[in-house]
Amino acid sequence: MDFESVFPVWKDLNAVQQKRILASLITRKAEKGTVIHNGSMDCTGLVLVKSGQLRAYILSDEGREITIYRLFDMDMCLFSASCMMRSIQFDVTIEAEKDTDLWVIPTETYKTIMEESAAVANYTNELMAARFSEVMWLLEQIMWKSLDKRVAAFLLEESAIEETQELKITHEKIANHLGTHREVITRMLRYFQSEGMIKISRGTILILEKEKLEKL
Amino acid sequence: MDFESVFPVWKDLNAVQQKRILASLITRKAEKGTVIHNGSMDCTGLVLVKSGQLRAYILSDEGREITIYRLFDMDMCLFSASCMMRSIQFDVTIEAEKDTDLWVIPTETYKTIMEESAAVANYTNELMAARFSEVMWLLEQIMWKSLDKRVAAFLLEESAIEETQELKITHEKIANHLGTHREVITRMLRYFQSEGMIKISRGTILILEKEKLEKL
Repeated sequence: MDFESVFPVWKDLNAVQQKRILASLITRKAEKGTVIHNGSMDCTGLVLVKSGQLRAYILSDEGREITIYRLFDMDMCLFSASCMMRSIQFDVTIEAEKDTDLWVIPTETYKTIMEESAAVANYTNELMAARFSEVMWLLEQIMWKSLDKRVAAFLLEESAIEETQELKITHEKIANHLGTHREVITRMLRYFQSEGMIKISRGTILILEKEKLEKL
Repeated sequence: MDFESVFPVWKDLNAVQQKRILASLITRKAEKGTVIHNGSMDCTGLVLVKSGQLRAYILSDEGREITIYRLFDMDMCLFSASCMMRSIQFDVTIEAEKDTDLWVIPTETYKTIMEESAAVANYTNELMAARFSEVMWLLEQIMWKSLDKRVAAFLLEESAIEETQELKITHEKIANHLGTHREVITRMLRYFQSEGMIKISRGTILILEKEKLEKL
């Protein structure tokens, strides 16, 4: 799998632009747990996931986290190059949730091409709109949905991503995804267990009744 | 004040594009309280505020609201043309908060020009990034800030916009801005009053101690 076949607007670039990208392109491996991009401290560049899984989250002053989106194979991350646009006034942290192979297009390279190519600029627009939609969805969840629904949705999502009913995840981690405290998650999981929907054991959560969770 | 001097990328358009915009441009007046754009039911077009004030908000199934941003003189609204981009998967409602004069660029006109002009596409990117930043700020407020801080910030913002210490606003309206219930706001305002920060009377809130509110 090469970059040319994965980068969505490759064919819209002229020969000079293609050359410029290939000349500056960085191939990187990130082990699970590595922070790839650390808010305003970095301007990493545009990240294209070859294989693996990344998580983008925001951090409060007190160190609380909330996941805003995840990136899978072939997904492109714009906010690791947030310094590219003056109007992006927020910081996200991006870490590898699994061992990940990725390409990085340096910010300057991408920016120059975006300024001259309507196709690349419009692609960037669609990319931002897609992430924006995810954040709006999250905002709606937080505003209108109660936490039991959000925890149930998270367990089902994890189960779908990992293709297993037995999730290896700590309560702390779920809390960080959902922007709440560990104790709150533990209480909710105990309630789910008492209802027979899941079984909790050390470091794992076994989904027993998927349908009941879905109903929530 | 004419459109040409207000539209930020006017000079980047060629003569044909300028002509196309002027030929399709709509001038509109919206009285206070008018809904200009109603989520996915409309694809109004790009709105440019000549003078006045607009509010963009999302609605829950139960009719609860939360303000996501406001638009003032010379501000441009992209999400009133959300049908323009496939990746915009959320709906906002836009209403006039004051009597407003505005221009509307029809969606098709703008889309065609954006697809051929890198300058317009990049301007659109900055526009979306600016709104995205406002929503991220809101998300952080909701996640990490307690409601007393949010109510205090809202009162101070209103006072700055209206240039008065005496706000004519109902508790219901504040609740709609902040995505909560009227009763919750009434309770909070009574607490502020008991602390001497504000004085509540029928339909108005008088800010007595700005510094105390700012401290919150």
